[in-house]
Amino acid sequence: MKSEEKLTLKKEAVDAELECLLSKGDSVLYGAMRYAVFSGGKRFRPLLALSSAECFGVSQAQALPYACALELIHNYSLIHDDLPLIDDDDLRRGRPSCHRTFGDDIALLAGDGLLTLAFEVLAGAPCGAGLYKKKERVILEISRCAGAEGMIGGQVLDITLPAEKMKEEVLVEMMQRKTGALITASVKVGPLLGDASQVQLDAITEYGENTGIAFQFRDDILDESALKETSGRHKKPNSALFFGPKEARRRLKRHVHAAITALDSASLESDELRFLALRLLNSEKKSGKEKNSG
Amino acid sequence: MKSEEKLTLKKEAVDAELECLLSKGDSVLYGAMRYAVFSGGKRFRPLLALSSAECFGVSQAQALPYACALELIHNYSLIHDDLPLIDDDDLRRGRPSCHRTFGDDIALLAGDGLLTLAFEVLAGAPCGAGLYKKKERVILEISRCAGAEGMIGGQVLDITLPAEKMKEEVLVEMMQRKTGALITASVKVGPLLGDASQVQLDAITEYGENTGIAFQFRDDILDESALKETSGRHKKPNSALFFGPKEARRRLKRHVHAAITALDSASLESDELRFLALRLLNSEKKSGKEKNSG
Repeated sequence: MKSEEKLTLKKEAVDAELECLLSKGDSVLYGAMRYAVFSGGKRFRPLLALSSAECFGVSQAQALPYACALELIHNYSLIHDDLPLIDDDDLRRGRPSCHRTFGDDIALLAGDGLLTLAFEVLAGAPCGAGLYKKKERVILEISRCAGAEGMIGGQVLDITLPAEKMKEEVLVEMMQRKTGALITASVKVGPLLGDASQVQLDAITEYGENTGIAFQFRDDILDESALKETSGRHKKPNSALFFGPKEARRRLKRHVHAAITALDSASLESDELRFLALRLLNSEKKSGKEKNSG
Repeated sequence: MKSEEKLTLKKEAVDAELECLLSKGDSVLYGAMRYAVFSGGKRFRPLLALSSAECFGVSQAQALPYACALELIHNYSLIHDDLPLIDDDDLRRGRPSCHRTFGDDIALLAGDGLLTLAFEVLAGAPCGAGLYKKKERVILEISRCAGAEGMIGGQVLDITLPAEKMKEEVLVEMMQRKTGALITASVKVGPLLGDASQVQLDAITEYGENTGIAFQFRDDILDESALKETSGRHKKPNSALFFGPKEARRRLKRHVHAAITALDSASLESDELRFLALRLLNSEKKSGKEKNSG
């Protein structure tokens, strides 16, 4: 089977599990949580987690809760980012953002609900005797990467650093934390749950870090195209504006290749991880205000 | 030693541990997180957790991470509740609320940071071999009580149900979920980590549920006094307004006594749990707009 087909099957498994996790309640709150999670996301982080699990001999059933938790965390962060008090985005993935549909208050609480559910899912992840230590390590990794020293800290840099005074190293740190941290945590699900050597763990971490930065470059390049078309506001840092589109594309390529090279360096055979990184090079144009973020 | 003195020592242990957990970063984000957590809270939930732990022979060192996580969750919920898009409260515990001091965006993210940190602390709670199953159960209990079916769902009821159309059973459900759920999770830390019979677990759960409702009655009674003094806005449901102050005080007493009776029914000897419930009867008046919430 081709990588693309295998990834489609994995995505279906993730969607089915997310559907199950979010079908508990019929309140407006669950409605808002479902609306945000089922809005056409590509499940990039879950696919990275499941592919890395496969690469290290961890079953899909075992890795699935972690994959779903990562997607829940990603989606909570998008809801909160879109709120008027941060980005004030009316659209997300081409349709009204969560707060435009459910109101600011419900959207805020839906984000809180998704984050809390993520950790309920992690806590309840099935775990054979003797594997608790591994499970604990993965949950710690995810919570650190999602927290104040990872993703949330990156978001703070994003909103507090004025674009006009940006320095390269700060911009890169912001990209690493805001986007790279959770993507890196995703690819570490496999080695941390399975049996990986330190060399393999280091290699896949390098893959994750480069893929994370590449992901943000791609997002910013697409966002910059959108900017040209719509001349919308753009005060927040954008790597494609900072480096210029040509240099941004060059860096995107460099990080994708570094990701692939990292896999090769530890002889990690995973056509899917390769495919997921290479796919970031396909930067098809998006329509005006549409925000994507995987 | 008297209950009050023992509780003071426990509070000092909680404060020291929270200080340690929040001292990692010197960013504006950590500043906002610390500001919210160190704003004069009485640590009601951690004290319940540590007292219930002691009651079931669980060491303070073992219970402390859970106690702190509960306080972090409580404080994240206060930050988010105070935001303009929900309660729009300028004051919390007598000083400017987090968003009035740090801005709405940083306050939102500080709340997210505290919630994420809570689960990092839970995931990392020291745990001897063979006790992982118990730890898992406590984390599941806390995440469910804090989540969409518990506290967050209660908050949604609070903001979506108009006070004028309120029915008693819905108001009580809202109080149970918004306030009671996390307080009940707090008192279950002891029996779930220690060795409790089902009868003991049921009894302390009943203690927790009654204490939670009593806590909310007390908060609403104090809030209603505040209302009379300042004639501020008050559209959200308030049990003291709904039942009238006299009936609200009667119910507060009834729940406190039901809590004590539940302890007695299973012969649970804990002067501190008793003291914490009885203290809710001391409803001293608060100044105008000051919000407390433990």
